[in-house]
Amino acid sequence: MNKQPIGFLDSGVGGLTVVKEVMKLLPDEEIYYIGDSARNPYGPRPLSDVLEFTIQLANLLVDQGIKLLVIACNTATVAALEVLQQRLDIPVIGVIESGTRAAVASSQNKKIGVIGTQGTIQSNEYEKQILKLLEDAEVQSVACPQFVSIVEKHQYEDELAKSVVSKELEPFLGSEMDTLVLGCTHYPLLQSIIQDYFGENLTLIDPGVETAIQVQNVLSKKDMLNKATEGSKQHIFYTSGPADKFEKIAKHWLKRSDIQVQHIAVEELQKYGR
Amino acid sequence: MNKQPIGFLDSGVGGLTVVKEVMKLLPDEEIYYIGDSARNPYGPRPLSDVLEFTIQLANLLVDQGIKLLVIACNTATVAALEVLQQRLDIPVIGVIESGTRAAVASSQNKKIGVIGTQGTIQSNEYEKQILKLLEDAEVQSVACPQFVSIVEKHQYEDELAKSVVSKELEPFLGSEMDTLVLGCTHYPLLQSIIQDYFGENLTLIDPGVETAIQVQNVLSKKDMLNKATEGSKQHIFYTSGPADKFEKIAKHWLKRSDIQVQHIAVEELQKYGR
Repeated sequence: MNKQPIGFLDSGVGGLTVVKEVMKLLPDEEIYYIGDSARNPYGPRPLSDVLEFTIQLANLLVDQGIKLLVIACNTATVAALEVLQQRLDIPVIGVIESGTRAAVASSQNKKIGVIGTQGTIQSNEYEKQILKLLEDAEVQSVACPQFVSIVEKHQYEDELAKSVVSKELEPFLGSEMDTLVLGCTHYPLLQSIIQDYFGENLTLIDPGVETAIQVQNVLSKKDMLNKATEGSKQHIFYTSGPADKFEKIAKHWLKRSDIQVQHIAVEELQKYGR
Repeated sequence: MNKQPIGFLDSGVGGLTVVKEVMKLLPDEEIYYIGDSARNPYGPRPLSDVLEFTIQLANLLVDQGIKLLVIACNTATVAALEVLQQRLDIPVIGVIESGTRAAVASSQNKKIGVIGTQGTIQSNEYEKQILKLLEDAEVQSVACPQFVSIVEKHQYEDELAKSVVSKELEPFLGSEMDTLVLGCTHYPLLQSIIQDYFGENLTLIDPGVETAIQVQNVLSKKDMLNKATEGSKQHIFYTSGPADKFEKIAKHWLKRSDIQVQHIAVEELQKYGR
């Protein structure tokens, strides 16, 4: 099954930040991706809804024959990681464990910030995971509900983005943290604005980087890496939203022109339910 | 360490429903209990606060030399079970896994209801655990925020309790569930009112019963059961609220007169922080 694609799911375009890292590290792998932009954002929804949607997306990708699934969305990881690990016969990787390990490795003063959607922050999952690894860490978690919409609307390079970022990050005023986890896969698209806001002394953690390493490790251990460097590859991107909007962001973010995007309606996704 | 006490923590008096089951099953064991009534209810608080409070309560009990800790509170189990299992050298048992197992074993039609505090329901932990064991279960979860206050205020036998129960359980109107999990340790005190509301065809699950069995299993496996049936036992109950109120409920619920309750101030508890 080495030539089978790796599957990625997300509430929209955010998971592309994880895809980008995996493409860098594993250029010979084929990627199948589904972004649920029509039902985005997931952050403010009850976790039971997020669980249901995530199961649909996962089943669709499994039907396409993926060999490994990345839940490239923090909110969906909180809601569904354990259930999908239990149900599916393929390895399932979330983004929170990776982000936690990178943050704990980076921080010198053990003061760590976390930003994410409402669902991720309310679940307190990052703080729990960080405290498991670093008993005396001080964790400050802040929900930034508007960031996802800005990214989905392709406004992440606008002047508006700067003012929204300044406003939502205000709770960190006076914080002594030396490390901040971008606890939502949409946020790396705002990375430079966030870095400008805090200055260079703060280390930003993009869990996508560590997740890509974990994908490599798992596939390598199971001897499932695609070793055929030759031959054509066909990356497929599905979105429940408008294909043209998705394609624009994907081409820009992944810096590739060979992006093919297919629209899939929510009614179709619902057929892949429990 | 067989003669050491078993520790129980809760946001208030709810954990007594678990103590009662453990006392029935393991009458030779000594019980140390802490109920944080001064900071009750935990349900509407951010899970990060619940985690912090729970660590304080756990550290206090560990300092008293307990041999096993029961997190006798669903909200605290969601917030702190993994962290405490990681940190403490003694076994730590929560109530959610037990409740899940009992519910899955009981349900015939796989339609299962869950009631709990806002924090527990928002975390979606019961649904996740149930789906891990029973893939095609249908779970309906409803938060009943007022139940805890009614129990803490000793109003659970009043006429008021009946009307609050009817109102908060309305979302189940028309439900075909055959099993309902009392996903908060305060709720068994309202069990007969809840049973009356639904009628006899619905099985109510009190996770305390299953938790007591788990306590017995763990202690038995580790050869840590107290085999000295002779000798005096001293159960100790701490509360951060008024001792007289706690004592009244404890004597009534546990049907014992040899209850000694000690008040401990929140400022004292805070010294047991991280």
